[in-house]
Amino acid sequence: MIDLRSDTVTRPTPEMLKAMTEAEVGDDVFESDPTVNKFQQKIAALFGMEAGLFVPSGTMSNQLGIKVLTEPGDEILIDEKGHIFNYETSAAPALSGVQVTTLQGKQGKLDRAVLENKVRGNFDWEPRTKVVCIENTTNKGGGVCYSKEELSEIKEFADEHELAVHLDGARIWNAMTATDIKPEYFGTIADTISVCFSKGLGAPVGSMLLSSKMNIAKARRYRKMWGGGMRQVGLLAAAAEYGVDNHWPLLKDDHRRARDVAETIAGCSKLAIDMDNLQTNILIFDVLEEDAVSAVERLQEEGIVMIPFGPKTIRATFYFEIGDEDVKQVKTVLKKLFN
Amino acid sequence: MIDLRSDTVTRPTPEMLKAMTEAEVGDDVFESDPTVNKFQQKIAALFGMEAGLFVPSGTMSNQLGIKVLTEPGDEILIDEKGHIFNYETSAAPALSGVQVTTLQGKQGKLDRAVLENKVRGNFDWEPRTKVVCIENTTNKGGGVCYSKEELSEIKEFADEHELAVHLDGARIWNAMTATDIKPEYFGTIADTISVCFSKGLGAPVGSMLLSSKMNIAKARRYRKMWGGGMRQVGLLAAAAEYGVDNHWPLLKDDHRRARDVAETIAGCSKLAIDMDNLQTNILIFDVLEEDAVSAVERLQEEGIVMIPFGPKTIRATFYFEIGDEDVKQVKTVLKKLFN
Amino acid sequence: MIDLRSDTVTRPTPEMLKAMTEAEVGDDVFESDPTVNKFQQKIAALFGMEAGLFVPSGTMSNQLGIKVLTEPGDEILIDEKGHIFNYETSAAPALSGVQVTTLQGKQGKLDRAVLENKVRGNFDWEPRTKVVCIENTTNKGGGVCYSKEELSEIKEFADEHELAVHLDGARIWNAMTATDIKPEYFGTIADTISVCFSKGLGAPVGSMLLSSKMNIAKARRYRKMWGGGMRQVGLLAAAAEYGVDNHWPLLKDDHRRARDVAETIAGCSKLAIDMDNLQTNILIFDVLEEDAVSAVERLQEEGIVMIPFGPKTIRATFYFEIGDEDVKQVKTVLKKLFN
Amino acid sequence: MIDLRSDTVTRPTPEMLKAMTEAEVGDDVFESDPTVNKFQQKIAALFGMEAGLFVPSGTMSNQLGIKVLTEPGDEILIDEKGHIFNYETSAAPALSGVQVTTLQGKQGKLDRAVLENKVRGNFDWEPRTKVVCIENTTNKGGGVCYSKEELSEIKEFADEHELAVHLDGARIWNAMTATDIKPEYFGTIADTISVCFSKGLGAPVGSMLLSSKMNIAKARRYRKMWGGGMRQVGLLAAAAEYGVDNHWPLLKDDHRRARDVAETIAGCSKLAIDMDNLQTNILIFDVLEEDAVSAVERLQEEGIVMIPFGPKTIRATFYFEIGDEDVKQVKTVLKKLFN
Repeated sequence: MIDLRSDTVTRPTPEMLKAMTEAEVGDDVFESDPTVNKFQQKIAALFGMEAGLFVPSGTMSNQLGIKVLTEPGDEILIDEKGHIFNYETSAAPALSGVQVTTLQGKQGKLDRAVLENKVRGNFDWEPRTKVVCIENTTNKGGGVCYSKEELSEIKEFADEHELAVHLDGARIWNAMTATDIKPEYFGTIADTISVCFSKGLGAPVGSMLLSSKMNIAKARRYRKMWGGGMRQVGLLAAAAEYGVDNHWPLLKDDHRRARDVAETIAGCSKLAIDMDNLQTNILIFDVLEEDAVSAVERLQEEGIVMIPFGPKTIRATFYFEIGDEDVKQVKTVLKKLFN
Repeated sequence: MIDLRSDTVTRPTPEMLKAMTEAEVGDDVFESDPTVNKFQQKIAALFGMEAGLFVPSGTMSNQLGIKVLTEPGDEILIDEKGHIFNYETSAAPALSGVQVTTLQGKQGKLDRAVLENKVRGNFDWEPRTKVVCIENTTNKGGGVCYSKEELSEIKEFADEHELAVHLDGARIWNAMTATDIKPEYFGTIADTISVCFSKGLGAPVGSMLLSSKMNIAKARRYRKMWGGGMRQVGLLAAAAEYGVDNHWPLLKDDHRRARDVAETIAGCSKLAIDMDNLQTNILIFDVLEEDAVSAVERLQEEGIVMIPFGPKTIRATFYFEIGDEDVKQVKTVLKKLFN
Repeated sequence: MIDLRSDTVTRPTPEMLKAMTEAEVGDDVFESDPTVNKFQQKIAALFGMEAGLFVPSGTMSNQLGIKVLTEPGDEILIDEKGHIFNYETSAAPALSGVQVTTLQGKQGKLDRAVLENKVRGNFDWEPRTKVVCIENTTNKGGGVCYSKEELSEIKEFADEHELAVHLDGARIWNAMTATDIKPEYFGTIADTISVCFSKGLGAPVGSMLLSSKMNIAKARRYRKMWGGGMRQVGLLAAAAEYGVDNHWPLLKDDHRRARDVAETIAGCSKLAIDMDNLQTNILIFDVLEEDAVSAVERLQEEGIVMIPFGPKTIRATFYFEIGDEDVKQVKTVLKKLFN
Repeated sequence: MIDLRSDTVTRPTPEMLKAMTEAEVGDDVFESDPTVNKFQQKIAALFGMEAGLFVPSGTMSNQLGIKVLTEPGDEILIDEKGHIFNYETSAAPALSGVQVTTLQGKQGKLDRAVLENKVRGNFDWEPRTKVVCIENTTNKGGGVCYSKEELSEIKEFADEHELAVHLDGARIWNAMTATDIKPEYFGTIADTISVCFSKGLGAPVGSMLLSSKMNIAKARRYRKMWGGGMRQVGLLAAAAEYGVDNHWPLLKDDHRRARDVAETIAGCSKLAIDMDNLQTNILIFDVLEEDAVSAVERLQEEGIVMIPFGPKTIRATFYFEIGDEDVKQVKTVLKKLFN
């Protein structure tokens, strides 16, 4: 089976496991795990932020970001494709008491045009607009990236309206691979950044919230309250660090493989694809003569697992466990089924 | 000054005050105020519901409705013009932990087309879609009403997907005046109804939640928790009851007066109005050659107070304190300024 | 029936109703009700506070006080007899996410001795101690008052530990009647004060939160969110103001009548009373030879309504509707039944 | 340094690391990690419960237990020494909106006598008593265990009053080692059980909630919402399982070593200890002629790390990394310093 469902299914490699078992660990609830302490500093420095906090999931780092930037009665603005809106079990309302207000951006990306006129006035009866949430790359938007100009336009808008910016960087590593934006640039755009190690980077567990020292101190308390305070965390941090050091450079191959397959798709008479929106490791395409569910079933019979992403739309995701041989096989099957 | 800002500004009449002062009262926290007890039964029976609960505001009755129908992590669907989404200080997220997801209906009304495909699947990571919220008449939508067919279509959709229906009936009295829908029909559509006595009906304070006995018992606890348990409530209930008995029949005159003014607007060369959307006491029109703020200022100089409702859009609201003489004056000023 | 259950059952007098009907009112959601605006300023000034906010219940003013002084994860300290702990439906945890930690004071009053060592350190895993809540007079504690020295000791402790003080002044009017403490003194002790108009002062509905301008602005938003924003509130404010002006001076008679009855109780062979704890209008005594429930039933057969307040303990409350004739009758019955 | 601060500081052994690296893993958010699935079933079966849910911390399993057993406005009863009350950052109020009401038990244990009369009536204004929380062994209570009779008395009380029982079994493994109570017995007492693998069992990360299938399904959603949904969890589950299989049998040695040291303490003229309360691996004793902080400092200079647990009280905790040689050394130092 060639499993192209999601890059969250990556499993630790023997080298990553070795890094874990060799990690020096301590009790992180008492802030005395040297491995996680060093790793938090390393990633914070990478993005030009003051401090970092290792957490068990991207949902937790996103929600801690929202928690430290808001109070109950506030409103956060987000594209209607946003992960925080769609896939976090209504956590922002439940944990922070904030309204998640959706805007209709493009491929999951916001811009000034959709934000304009969406910041509310200062009335007792209105939610108070407080945070712009952006996602980079956009998961449900098909893995597209913000350009430097797009990011700076959003930051400018946020500054004008005294809004904070939260960046959901679950796949920021893919974004940095696909563009020439340096990590520290994101630190100038966002007040809080959530980055994830368990997708394309291949760590078994772990995300990180990056922000100011004061925000991270607040987030530590809420992490404990929400049950995210763990003990010998250095084991997980070592795996994450191994991923950053060794798997980040491999993402460009995932992107190349996605493009390779996309070109085959573009040549299939019964498939359609918008090559402009293929920017990273997430490949979205349409089937023309049947519905997505049946096409996915036919692919599965040939040993290729993708997921339906709309009535006629299919998603395939690439990650380091999918090699060139797999790609060759996927192309063969696609041609066979859809030409 | 002729104040057309909102029908919430109505003040109690001498007769209403007399009804208040003559009311027999008791301590409603102990459920021993006879006036409010009888009034709750009367309104519940009117709408064919089992029980009612008098509360200090429409925000409280809306939010209690949502509270008894949901649990944290759920999602409620609502038109993007909905009062619960726009004007209740993010109460649904803060008090119930639910996500308020907006849809793009017409004049604030939902229909099957916009609801279709919006009910989420049953995954741990998704909010669980639980309630369809409708507003009748629609405030921000310009006072339009649902037809019987539109309501039954929504109820059908809700039943198919095991969703509850909450009806924000802040101006249900206007809706019943403008259509031939009987009150008890709403009881067959909605699981919870919020009705308001302090808008066109003219009571100083008060709304009511209507639902099953079990839901109302739950709502009583949350009303107490949120600080809405009041003592000699019969005073306020008497005013509300006076409004239902004596001011409800007057709403048709408010509607007539709104239409009267609208026809003048339709004849003004510098104004535009969509007469189809004028159904009740809320009159929305556009200014063609200036922006709304400046037009509202020029009106105010002539003694007419309206409110800007968009860059080029103005809203005027009619209620029993605005008589035929006022209407005549408004028409004269409109012709003078915008012809 | 002579109803001594609670001073919350007071009903508006004809003069109070007259004051209500003559009040000039407006829409308080837009802050344009002149009567409530003036009344808020008057009460704030009385207690030496910057601003006031009229709300539908004492639960709401208490909970708004806690809300503006805390954030989720904080802890408030309160005597185990406190109203906020016992009779507000767990509102402080539910609305503010704070832990309500009880201490064992005397007759519902805290002092330095019980507070000592209760302020927690600054660890991620501990609630953060933030507010000392005091109640004056103490309801469940039997209507006893804090002395000036006791209040100043608590304030001193709070200052030393950087804690805020919330004063639940539901019966502060009784406390001021029974002691020589001036209202403005309470403003030097507490950061937020909740005062009530619907107990001994006899208003049908209404309490007020007093604090700084900034806290009151925050509280206004939460009042709206929780459904406490009302429209023509001046009606209720006029009743409350009438109560402050005209019924406050009468509380000393309630206290005298309570003492009068207490002396009879002290003389009854089958009853016991601690005269030292009888300081205001709440009279607590024990029955020696039966249980409280049966004694209360026998009293009820004689037309006197009191409430059981413990296995052997009974509570009777005095308020302006209970006159000297009633007191005479109560004394006669007590002697008849318990001597 | 001999670190006796807490059994949370245990680090994975080489054998445990080997078990981790050999674990077959999958994506647990999709419920497709075989190792964690099997482990959840194994532990649930051990305690006679239907289902289990692996989570990142004991705080999360405790709080998920409370969440599935309550709704906002409820009250949970707990001993004042309880972990949920003292060391979980006010999570129960913040995440579940419940009041945590403390009782004064013995060594952290509740019994019928302290529970009696603490279940509230059914009034809108009172919190609704819903859960009895017990901790076994009691952490702050000094590691003491409930007997079978004590547990059954609590269950009987809970049943009589229709209360649920939550068991915080962070150190249930120690309790089972010190008594002859079989694991499945706890399943007959408690509706929800939280067990921990990262204390004496030595796993780096992980706890588990045990309950009915329906409760665990609800808990899964809240785990996701709170950010506890992790990916390749089998790694951590394998470590936990190794701990259960291999380190649980070693706890009896920790208990023996604690007792060995305790006997030395009993013989020191400047120390005092209550041997009756020494039942497991937590050793609590008093210093007679100085305060705890200074005694702890003097111990630290000799290479022994304990923690102050009161003005005159010190706590030492034993776990598998502390061997017989360490114990010998501790005894020597104690005799030297305190005799």
